[in-house]
Amino acid sequence: MKQSLGAKTIVLPAPVFIVGSYDEQDHPNIMTAAWGGICGSDPPCLTVSIRPARLTYENIMRRRAYTVSIPSVSQAREADYAGLCSGRDGNKFEALGLTPVRSKLVDAPYVGEFPLTVECRLRQTVELGVHTLFIGEIMDVKVEDWAMNESGVIAVEKLRPLTFSPADGAYYGLGDFVGKAFSIGKK
Amino acid sequence: MKQSLGAKTIVLPAPVFIVGSYDEQDHPNIMTAAWGGICGSDPPCLTVSIRPARLTYENIMRRRAYTVSIPSVSQAREADYAGLCSGRDGNKFEALGLTPVRSKLVDAPYVGEFPLTVECRLRQTVELGVHTLFIGEIMDVKVEDWAMNESGVIAVEKLRPLTFSPADGAYYGLGDFVGKAFSIGKK
Repeated sequence: MKQSLGAKTIVLPAPVFIVGSYDEQDHPNIMTAAWGGICGSDPPCLTVSIRPARLTYENIMRRRAYTVSIPSVSQAREADYAGLCSGRDGNKFEALGLTPVRSKLVDAPYVGEFPLTVECRLRQTVELGVHTLFIGEIMDVKVEDWAMNESGVIAVEKLRPLTFSPADGAYYGLGDFVGKAFSIGKK
Repeated sequence: MKQSLGAKTIVLPAPVFIVGSYDEQDHPNIMTAAWGGICGSDPPCLTVSIRPARLTYENIMRRRAYTVSIPSVSQAREADYAGLCSGRDGNKFEALGLTPVRSKLVDAPYVGEFPLTVECRLRQTVELGVHTLFIGEIMDVKVEDWAMNESGVIAVEKLRPLTFSPADGAYYGLGDFVGKAFSIGKK
């Protein structure tokens, strides 16, 4: 039997996106966002939704670029901190001891220490009430050597991505391998 | 040291969305989609991207509604099957022994057996190359009693949502609780 929870923003899981951008003075900034995901295969595109009051909103609008870095579970405190305060009040990279790496492909920085990074060029925006949906074209995906296996594929069990649950406002790790897609349903 | 993987559709994790819709003859259909997520808080909105060739695309365009049901890890085979074949070739609910439940709020069915369901009214579409991005306003979220705790909050460790990894084309469970959001970064 199902219970109704009302018109809430709940799906499971949501990602933990650390959105990198440059401000007007070329200072690198990050913020944490959970509203986003892949939105198209060709061109490869990624959405992230951001409120207009955020510094990141201004930054992306000006530079037409952003990165999304994905932390491991061991980096949950850094990820949470980046969502608690504004880059207008101080440099979050410095506060967290993280390294801003300048992308060679888009006009935005990414987090050197986080294992997975997606570099996006802004393609389009859609106004959706309190949030603006940014649609970015993916220019590259970068991953740390230690999070790859011998065949050059990301090893999810090594990367250990952090995830967010809007249902209880908490972070969870990714769990066990269940099966291959486009395969286990054939039986 | 980071390696470049090229312009690929990789973030971790992606969701496993079982998209419910009605066809022209009022037959219920489901398909599996991993490109989507929450895209706004007020109004609460959810995206899902679908190729125009899919039956689900036609259905949503006609009925202006869809549901997203989220399976548990124990339902991975059913979820995968719904992405392997087309509703044009047969009723996937019947093939899988799943129950189509008619939503009272939107003109679409959801999967009775899957623990979490989001009912959406189509708000807007955005053309993005091979995919069309559907933006739906969330009208309700429904969850099974057994997946709630005593205080009326979803118990993620009971619900055990299935997730998808585009990095290796595989399904994973959700893992351990890591910490509360807007909290663990304060230390």
